[in-house]
Amino acid sequence: MATVTPPSDPESDPRVKAVFDDIRQTRGSDFINNVWRYLAFDPALLEQTWAEVKAVMATPSALEPKVKEMIYAAVSIANSCEYCTHSHLAAARAKSMTPEEFTDFLRVVSSAGKTNQLLNALRIPVDAAFQMGKE
Amino acid sequence: MATVTPPSDPESDPRVKAVFDDIRQTRGSDFINNVWRYLAFDPALLEQTWAEVKAVMATPSALEPKVKEMIYAAVSIANSCEYCTHSHLAAARAKSMTPEEFTDFLRVVSSAGKTNQLLNALRIPVDAAFQMGKE
Amino acid sequence: MATVTPPSDPESDPRVKAVFDDIRQTRGSDFINNVWRYLAFDPALLEQTWAEVKAVMATPSALEPKVKEMIYAAVSIANSCEYCTHSHLAAARAKSMTPEEFTDFLRVVSSAGKTNQLLNALRIPVDAAFQMGKE
Amino acid sequence: MATVTPPSDPESDPRVKAVFDDIRQTRGSDFINNVWRYLAFDPALLEQTWAEVKAVMATPSALEPKVKEMIYAAVSIANSCEYCTHSHLAAARAKSMTPEEFTDFLRVVSSAGKTNQLLNALRIPVDAAFQMGKE
Amino acid sequence: MATVTPPSDPESDPRVKAVFDDIRQTRGSDFINNVWRYLAFDPALLEQTWAEVKAVMATPSALEPKVKEMIYAAVSIANSCEYCTHSHLAAARAKSMTPEEFTDFLRVVSSAGKTNQLLNALRIPVDAAFQMGKE
Amino acid sequence: MATVTPPSDPESDPRVKAVFDDIRQTRGSDFINNVWRYLAFDPALLEQTWAEVKAVMATPSALEPKVKEMIYAAVSIANSCEYCTHSHLAAARAKSMTPEEFTDFLRVVSSAGKTNQLLNALRIPVDAAFQMGKE
Repeated sequence: MATVTPPSDPESDPRVKAVFDDIRQTRGSDFINNVWRYLAFDPALLEQTWAEVKAVMATPSALEPKVKEMIYAAVSIANSCEYCTHSHLAAARAKSMTPEEFTDFLRVVSSAGKTNQLLNALRIPVDAAFQMGKE
Repeated sequence: MATVTPPSDPESDPRVKAVFDDIRQTRGSDFINNVWRYLAFDPALLEQTWAEVKAVMATPSALEPKVKEMIYAAVSIANSCEYCTHSHLAAARAKSMTPEEFTDFLRVVSSAGKTNQLLNALRIPVDAAFQMGKE
Repeated sequence: MATVTPPSDPESDPRVKAVFDDIRQTRGSDFINNVWRYLAFDPALLEQTWAEVKAVMATPSALEPKVKEMIYAAVSIANSCEYCTHSHLAAARAKSMTPEEFTDFLRVVSSAGKTNQLLNALRIPVDAAFQMGKE
Repeated sequence: MATVTPPSDPESDPRVKAVFDDIRQTRGSDFINNVWRYLAFDPALLEQTWAEVKAVMATPSALEPKVKEMIYAAVSIANSCEYCTHSHLAAARAKSMTPEEFTDFLRVVSSAGKTNQLLNALRIPVDAAFQMGKE
Repeated sequence: MATVTPPSDPESDPRVKAVFDDIRQTRGSDFINNVWRYLAFDPALLEQTWAEVKAVMATPSALEPKVKEMIYAAVSIANSCEYCTHSHLAAARAKSMTPEEFTDFLRVVSSAGKTNQLLNALRIPVDAAFQMGKE
Repeated sequence: MATVTPPSDPESDPRVKAVFDDIRQTRGSDFINNVWRYLAFDPALLEQTWAEVKAVMATPSALEPKVKEMIYAAVSIANSCEYCTHSHLAAARAKSMTPEEFTDFLRVVSSAGKTNQLLNALRIPVDAAFQMGKE
C-alpha cells in the first residue's frame, strides 16, 4: 500500500509520456517500473527525479555502471529502503553483476554493518594519518 | 573520547603482537591505525575482528579492492559511522580511487540518500519483474 | 504479521475502553487504528503511549497540528518506520495538508536525505557561527 | 577533520566565485558557511548542490521557509548528520523559529523517535483506511 | 519477495545438509527457518553466517541467552530489519523472556529512541566523567 | 558545540533545582551530567525527560538495571547517538556490567549489525512460525 495513488492512464499527460519515452529509450526496454508509474502523480516531481537518476546512473562517468548500482544498493540496504534495494540490485544484475560479485558484495556490506556497530560503540578517535590517504 | 582505554604497550601481549605483525605484513606498511590499537583491550576480539576484515577486504575476490572499499564506505556513511567513513575512504584512496571516481561516488551515495527518503515516504510496491533481473 | 497478538475483544477491559473512548472523543471519529488495537495487549503501555501522543500531537502548542504531523512523518521516513509513515501522513492530510504542501514536503525530505549522505561522507567541521543563529 | 581538503583561495576559480556570489545575494549576507567552502574542492559538485538547495529551500513554495527548515532538520537528526542538524536548526532560527516552536519541535521529533522504535518492534499491519486520509 | 531464490532441494548439497544438521542439533528442533533456507543459495556464505551466529548466540558466554537475544533484537529494531526483529524476538521468547520482560524491553527501546532523537538534535558535549564509569 | 546554550546558574530556577535534587537522590551521587545541565534551558522539557528516564530506567521492573542499560546502549549505538552511547555504557558499568559482559555485548551488537545488513539486502520472507515463538 503506497501513500500516493498512481494515475490510471499516466501517459495521457504529455509531460509524463515524455519522461516514460525517455526511460524506454535510455534503457532500451519497454518496461516502466513502479517508481515512475507512481511518481506520475506529480509530473514535475517525476521529471526532476528521472533527470537526476538519469544524470547520475545512466550517463557515462568515472565509475562503471555496475559498480554505481552496487554502491547505490549498499546505501539503500543501510537505510532499509526496500524498493530501492530491489530495484538497484536488479539493475546491477542487468548491468552484468555476476553471482560471485553479488556474494562478495553481500560479504562487504555485512562486514561493514558489523564494524559500523562496533565502532559506533567504541567511539575511537579518527587517526590524523587518514587525511594523508593512509589506510 | 572512546568508551574503552587502549593498552599503553599493546605489543607486550604476544597475541596482540601477532595481529599487529600480520597487519603490517598484509598492508606492507608500519602504520597501525587506532581501531587496532584500541581493540587490543581485548585480544580475542582483536583477533576475530582482524581475521574477518582481512578475509573480506584484504583477500583477492570477485570485486576489485578499490570497489570493495567504496561499498564499505557507502554503508558506513549511511550508518553515520565516522571512524569507518574516514578509514575506508582513506583505504579506497590508497587502493587507487581517483578524484574523479571519488566525486562520482559522492554523487551516487547522495542520490541514493535522496531516493531512499523519497521511496520510504511513498512506500511504492516492489515490481514482480525485479525478481527476473529487470531494471 | 505483528510480534504481538491483539486481544479479540479489547474494550472488555475497562482501561482499554477508557483509552479508546478518549481517542474517539479527541479525534471526533469512531475509527480506532491498528496501533491502539494491538497495544491493547498491555493496557498500561497503551495508556502511556496514548497519553504521550495526545499531549504532544493533539494538544494546542506553538506549532500548528499539520506542521507537527509533517515533522513526525519526516522522522518516521528517515527511521524507515512503515506504520508511522502511513499514519502520520494520513494525519497530516486529515489536518489539511494540501497536495502542493505534500509535494513540497517530499522535495524537502529527499533533499535532506541527499545532503545528509553527502555531509556524512565529507565530515565537514561545524561553523562556530551556527551557535549565533547564522544560516 | 574532513575527508576532503578545501581550496585555500576558493574564489580564484570563477565557477566557485559565481556560486558564492549567488549564496551571498540569495541570503543577503556575506557569511559563507563551511559546506560551501569545502565543496569548492569540486566546482561542478558545488554548483549542483547549491542549485538544488536553492531551488528547494530558498525559493517560495507551498510551505513556509521556517517549516521547511524544521522538516529538513528533523530528517538530519534522524540520520545523525551533525553538520546538517546544526546548519538547518540555525537556518530555522534565522527564519524566525521561536524558542517555543523549537521546544515543540524537540517534543515532536523525540516522540516520533519513541514510537518509531515501538512500531518497528511491534510490526503492526498498516490500516487500509490510511489510504483514505483517515487518521 | 526476496532478492535471491532459495534452492528447491537444499539438503541435496552435502555442505548445506551439514549446516542444517548442526542447526537442528544445536537447537534441539527440526525447524529450519527461512534465513537458512535462502542462504543455501551460496553454501560458503551459509556456513560462515551460521558459524558466527552459533559462536555468538548459541555458545555459553558472559551474558545469558535471553539477554543476548534482547540486545540483538534492540539493534535490529533500530536498524529496521524486519526479519531480524521477528526472529530474535521469537528466540528471546523461546529462551524464556516473560511477557513482563517483553513489555519492559519495549519501554526501554522506545525511550532510547526518544532520547536518541533529542540528543542528536541537541548535540550536547560528552562528559569527561563518563570515561571513569560515572553515570 | 551544542544547538542550545545551558543556563549558567541552572539551580537558581526552583523547577530545575527540584529535578537536580531528585537526580542526586535517585543516584546517590552529586554528579549531574551534561544532558540535564543543558536541558535546563527549558524546565518543562527537563522535568518530562527526567520523569520518563527515571520511570523506565531507575525504577525496579522485570529486567535488571544492568540489562536495561545494555539494551538502551544497543539502540543508541545503532542510531549513532554519541552522547547516549557514552552515558548508557557508563551507566551499565556503574550498575556492575563486567568487562566480560561488555565484550560479549560488543560481539552481539556487531553480529546484529552484520546480519541486519545481510537480511535487509536479501529481504527474506518472515516465517509464519515466529508468531508461535519458535526460534
